[in-house]
Amino acid sequence: MAAAAILPELGTQVLIPVAAAVGIAFSVLQWVLVSKVRLAPERRADGGGAVKSGPSDYLIEEEEGLNDHNVVVKCAEIQNAISEGATSFLFTEYKYVGLFMGIFAILIFLFLGSVEGFSTKSQPCHYSKDKTCKPALANAIFSTIAFVLGAVTSLVSGFLGMKIATYANARTTLEARKGVGKAFITAFRSGAVMGFLLAASGLLVLYIAINLFGIYYGDDWEGLFEAITGYGLGGSSMALFGRVGGGIYTKAADVGADLVGKVERNIPEDDPRNPAVIADNVGDNVGDIAGMGSDLFGSYAESSCAALVVASISSFGINHQFTPMVYPLLVSSVGIIACLITTLFATDFFEIKAVNEIEPALKKQLIISTVVMTIGIALISWLGLPYTFTIYNFGAQKTVQSWQLFLCVAVGLWAGLVIGFITEYYTSNAYSPVQVVADSCRTGAATNVIFGLALGYKSVIIPIFAIAFSIFLSFSLAAMYGVAVAALGMLSTIATGLAIDAYGPISDNAGGIAEMAGMSHRIRERTDALDAAGNTTAAIGKGFAIGSAALVSLALFGAFVSRAAISTVDVLTPKVFIGLIVGAMLPYWFSAMTMKSVGSAALKMVEEVRRQFNTIPGLMEGTTKPDYATCVKISTDASIKEMIPPGALVMLTPLIVGILFGVETLAGVLAGALVSGVQIAISASNTGGAWDNAKKYIEAGASEHARTLGPKGSDPHKAAVIGDTIGDPLKDTSGPSLNILIKLMAVESLVFAPFFAAHGGIIFKWL
Amino acid sequence: MAAAAILPELGTQVLIPVAAAVGIAFSVLQWVLVSKVRLAPERRADGGGAVKSGPSDYLIEEEEGLNDHNVVVKCAEIQNAISEGATSFLFTEYKYVGLFMGIFAILIFLFLGSVEGFSTKSQPCHYSKDKTCKPALANAIFSTIAFVLGAVTSLVSGFLGMKIATYANARTTLEARKGVGKAFITAFRSGAVMGFLLAASGLLVLYIAINLFGIYYGDDWEGLFEAITGYGLGGSSMALFGRVGGGIYTKAADVGADLVGKVERNIPEDDPRNPAVIADNVGDNVGDIAGMGSDLFGSYAESSCAALVVASISSFGINHQFTPMVYPLLVSSVGIIACLITTLFATDFFEIKAVNEIEPALKKQLIISTVVMTIGIALISWLGLPYTFTIYNFGAQKTVQSWQLFLCVAVGLWAGLVIGFITEYYTSNAYSPVQVVADSCRTGAATNVIFGLALGYKSVIIPIFAIAFSIFLSFSLAAMYGVAVAALGMLSTIATGLAIDAYGPISDNAGGIAEMAGMSHRIRERTDALDAAGNTTAAIGKGFAIGSAALVSLALFGAFVSRAAISTVDVLTPKVFIGLIVGAMLPYWFSAMTMKSVGSAALKMVEEVRRQFNTIPGLMEGTTKPDYATCVKISTDASIKEMIPPGALVMLTPLIVGILFGVETLAGVLAGALVSGVQIAISASNTGGAWDNAKKYIEAGASEHARTLGPKGSDPHKAAVIGDTIGDPLKDTSGPSLNILIKLMAVESLVFAPFFAAHGGIIFKWL
Repeated sequence: MAAAAILPELGTQVLIPVAAAVGIAFSVLQWVLVSKVRLAPERRADGGGAVKSGPSDYLIEEEEGLNDHNVVVKCAEIQNAISEGATSFLFTEYKYVGLFMGIFAILIFLFLGSVEGFSTKSQPCHYSKDKTCKPALANAIFSTIAFVLGAVTSLVSGFLGMKIATYANARTTLEARKGVGKAFITAFRSGAVMGFLLAASGLLVLYIAINLFGIYYGDDWEGLFEAITGYGLGGSSMALFGRVGGGIYTKAADVGADLVGKVERNIPEDDPRNPAVIADNVGDNVGDIAGMGSDLFGSYAESSCAALVVASISSFGINHQFTPMVYPLLVSSVGIIACLITTLFATDFFEIKAVNEIEPALKKQLIISTVVMTIGIALISWLGLPYTFTIYNFGAQKTVQSWQLFLCVAVGLWAGLVIGFITEYYTSNAYSPVQVVADSCRTGAATNVIFGLALGYKSVIIPIFAIAFSIFLSFSLAAMYGVAVAALGMLSTIATGLAIDAYGPISDNAGGIAEMAGMSHRIRERTDALDAAGNTTAAIGKGFAIGSAALVSLALFGAFVSRAAISTVDVLTPKVFIGLIVGAMLPYWFSAMTMKSVGSAALKMVEEVRRQFNTIPGLMEGTTKPDYATCVKISTDASIKEMIPPGALVMLTPLIVGILFGVETLAGVLAGALVSGVQIAISASNTGGAWDNAKKYIEAGASEHARTLGPKGSDPHKAAVIGDTIGDPLKDTSGPSLNILIKLMAVESLVFAPFFAAHGGIIFKWL
Repeated sequence: MAAAAILPELGTQVLIPVAAAVGIAFSVLQWVLVSKVRLAPERRADGGGAVKSGPSDYLIEEEEGLNDHNVVVKCAEIQNAISEGATSFLFTEYKYVGLFMGIFAILIFLFLGSVEGFSTKSQPCHYSKDKTCKPALANAIFSTIAFVLGAVTSLVSGFLGMKIATYANARTTLEARKGVGKAFITAFRSGAVMGFLLAASGLLVLYIAINLFGIYYGDDWEGLFEAITGYGLGGSSMALFGRVGGGIYTKAADVGADLVGKVERNIPEDDPRNPAVIADNVGDNVGDIAGMGSDLFGSYAESSCAALVVASISSFGINHQFTPMVYPLLVSSVGIIACLITTLFATDFFEIKAVNEIEPALKKQLIISTVVMTIGIALISWLGLPYTFTIYNFGAQKTVQSWQLFLCVAVGLWAGLVIGFITEYYTSNAYSPVQVVADSCRTGAATNVIFGLALGYKSVIIPIFAIAFSIFLSFSLAAMYGVAVAALGMLSTIATGLAIDAYGPISDNAGGIAEMAGMSHRIRERTDALDAAGNTTAAIGKGFAIGSAALVSLALFGAFVSRAAISTVDVLTPKVFIGLIVGAMLPYWFSAMTMKSVGSAALKMVEEVRRQFNTIPGLMEGTTKPDYATCVKISTDASIKEMIPPGALVMLTPLIVGILFGVETLAGVLAGALVSGVQIAISASNTGGAWDNAKKYIEAGASEHARTLGPKGSDPHKAAVIGDTIGDPLKDTSGPSLNILIKLMAVESLVFAPFFAAHGGIIFKWL
């Protein structure tokens, strides 16, 4: 009776793992290419000269300092110190988070198991009452397994990303000696290693889990995909701690280093005399790389889970049509291929020759990936979906056609592009908004901050309209399933997104290494140019992360409401309204915690850096080395200690609200946190990005206008440095953590929905 | 059949105007007492000495410089300049706003008249279909009249407030020569003049309007109170322009004056050599006094209207029970009496003798007024309400008892007190939050800003819980009517609230006049102490304004939804959700506009002040006078020009959304703007207040800790000044304007609801 998709189940079962394998292979290939840039120590052990990967490498005109062996040794040493610091921090972080995850896994098992009193008997299904489903106990066990699987995948993603980034940073520095183009390709390839590895492994693990769980669940797809949702929760929980802990680490070090180094001692950024400089560079890797990796992986896992859980109770699931059922995974598979083609445009088809070509090249990546992917989506929607099917829509089944679902995915994809462009416009110093902010530094730090905050607020407008339009279209066409696949559409180019995103911190580190290794001013200029583009791409990456988080959260929210058997979430009931207003407050509470944490940790760092400058003789003169390890320890201790309260706020809120006030109030909280959090997240990221680039604009002095504000050390520049420092916790700690706040509360509510529906709302029951 | 209230209609008809008359009389009495402090010039014309209002005035120990006639003359001159500047600005502002109001009045008439095609025939009532109501055309005419009436009352309130404040400022300065206690009483009495005048005249005009409109409407109370809603819209529209225009004016001048004077030229605040100093002092009066007056008047008018419109379709209105029908007005009447008693505690029963008694005295005002008013509410609820009645609740009638309505009003009142106390805790430099912010100035402006922002975010938590609790209780007990009277409860002590609120800018001005008149350091210390307490009370006043705005908006929102005949506002429909997320964005858009306006205007001011310092010889030495008038003109021009776009955003959004997308989306927009705006408003106000007082904490050096950070001119102090400057537009422009944004959009939607219900949503109709 039910129309079938063109692509048979067998084809699907081949296509998904093959796409994942291609992604992983491509990632390895990029890694091999990066590894061709050799760090000297190994070569010197063979008795060879420095960096001699082939005669053609010497053909670039602007080569400089290629034969200085000491520099290469220094770079290798610094890289090693950064890598060790990052590894040691992540292991410490994972130890604490592991403990937390263990406890939370037990909670999931106990809460979900208790829904039917740990009964091992099969029960009537929740949605199809005439069928029999696996017992709640099975759901508890498999949800717990999926949770652990998601957490481990997220952890591994973050860790590998960090490893790759610390492998690539010094290599980028060394390539910068040959010119900006070579350095760009190294940094970008390294980003691609991370992007493809994450996208492919996320897909593969999910695919394997579905197939393995399916052995037990058999025909009970409703139960199977409900259990799979734990995968999203695990991924996002891990990402929360990664983002918050990493964010506090990196910004405590960065702010502390800048406040004493740049402001008090008047030494340049990343100067090796600064005791906090290693901690600062470690921070870029644990915060921006590992944190961002976990975050986007979480979004990807959650949007897939949200789509799958709705699909399982739609005609795909009811009629056991495997190919359309795993349509979300097919979209991601096509995404990997589309991104692969896109990457070649940056690394092989064109070559960067000048500094001002970097940003356009990265922007082209966004456009190309979007165009290619649009074709990919059209193809897979035609092949993978029956022409007509029904989608579960809050109790009813809504008839949808395959081209409508194509529109849903495509609108998410293109909304992502719009958000990316707007973010670029507001944070790149090539356009007027950042230049106006830079100009306001003439009258000091206060006007800089006022203009910067205003810029961030303003930058929210168009992204929100883009998100609202995507939601309206996808929601109208295919209910919550439409919203979930729109989120997947935005994330379908995640490999490219992560590549250009990871490129930023790698370039930042490369600049730091150049400075610390005492390389020439010209090389530092090249890495600075890479870095300025990196600030913009980082902001774009955050824009994607936030936009997709908004869509994902809404989809999860919809799935939660369906599972909790609420038919309406009416603002005009007191239960829902108080949830809404308190939910809208949570992002502020969370931001207050993370901002204050960064501030306090930075103060400790400042004291330590000052102490070292005051008590270590010869430090300022560069004759003695500072004690880097103490600064690394301060950042580590602060971030581990300070990530607990905000983490607990996010993880416990849905549990407390669900248990005490019930599902209606919880629905209000989710909606409130979503609509309020997304605004703060976007404005915080863009304000911070704009301040950073306003400072770089003055430093680079690339235009007549910029030169009137500079040079480094001028009053406007000092004002710009203050703005940059304020922006640090906004753009790298509280802003990006907020996406996780809204996603995580939604996915957690979904996972615990059966429990809340059965046992929640005890206060209102008691009243 | 329907139970009646104990208080007969005749008693009500006497009580309300008598209470209003008592309020006005008390206001006049306070004014007479303030006017006893004589400004010298008139006295000198009679050949008498300075300030000799009675022998007892000389009995305070700390008297200082009482016989310096020149000082008195100078004070009078400066006061005159400030008063003239403020009057001239307000007249300019009113000219533009008047034009706008005229156009908007025509719009109201045309839109509402078109609902039934300008028919003059009576129609079946909207809620009671079996009865006949006046035609829509009558509603259009009377709504327009009520709108104009509200706008004019608001305008007069703001103008009189400004007049009183500029009358009182120099008198406070002169009294400061006799001691801090005398100065405090003068400032506080002047605030009371404004508070009582506003509360009483607002009540009186509303009472008269109801009685006059009633002559035409007769038995059609549904139509009568629908038309009366225009009064709230008029009041709030005026308040919007007052807040935004005045806010831009005051902060452009303040920021501009500080940036050049304090930071570049190192001259003290309010130094007469600073060309922007008069504009700065004018600003305090047009922004903080006239703006705040209009704002709170608007809240009062709107919450009364929201309550009345719901009451008219409840048993009170259906059964034509006059006394319970005007219960909102009775609550306000009792409020005037309660505040009168409270004021005596500050001015007559106790006396301030030392600087550290000021804040406790103001705090006691809050507590006393709340306790007295609680008794008053209990009394009037017992007398003015039948024991049982029904309240309209989205289509149904809900049975409510009089003690439940007492609880609704009381919970609002006490929530106001909680908000006041929390605001005080976060913004007064007597407690640790502000001291921590001050301490963070050690490491410069960046940490100051980070800690200040975190403080503002954190200060949102408890007020939101207080608001949520009030909403839950009042909503559960008496639906939207409960929320409306909870808002009225919070505003019932408005006379006291306004008095302590107006006290702040008056003290600020008094300090400015002392500095400009070259009075001694000791007198300036006294006015500074008054001013520091004033910053806290200003923040408390803003807390009240925001808290009541949240409740009022919800009540108006509920009334709008009822009038627009929507039965649910379900977040899980695309129309509503996109409204919600876009609505949550509006406060950011609005803040971006106002912050940027202040920044740009301040830049212009900076240029002018610099120009004067550079080109006017002898200015820095104090031998030549600066050109104050040009600075006043810059502030005036900037604020008039810049208030239009944010004003248009707020006024046009409900119209555009209602007409194009219809009432469901508009309901989403209102809910989103409400839950998001209230958070930004609270955090912006408190962050700004905290920065201001952190600076004052360092300057005053009243503790061991504070002295380690000072003195004026130290690096931490400079960092604190930057924070203070950033806080200016946050706390005095964008923050407080946001209350009006959320209220005004709600009341506008309510007024236009009949039109939207008839002709709105053309896009969706077309799709």
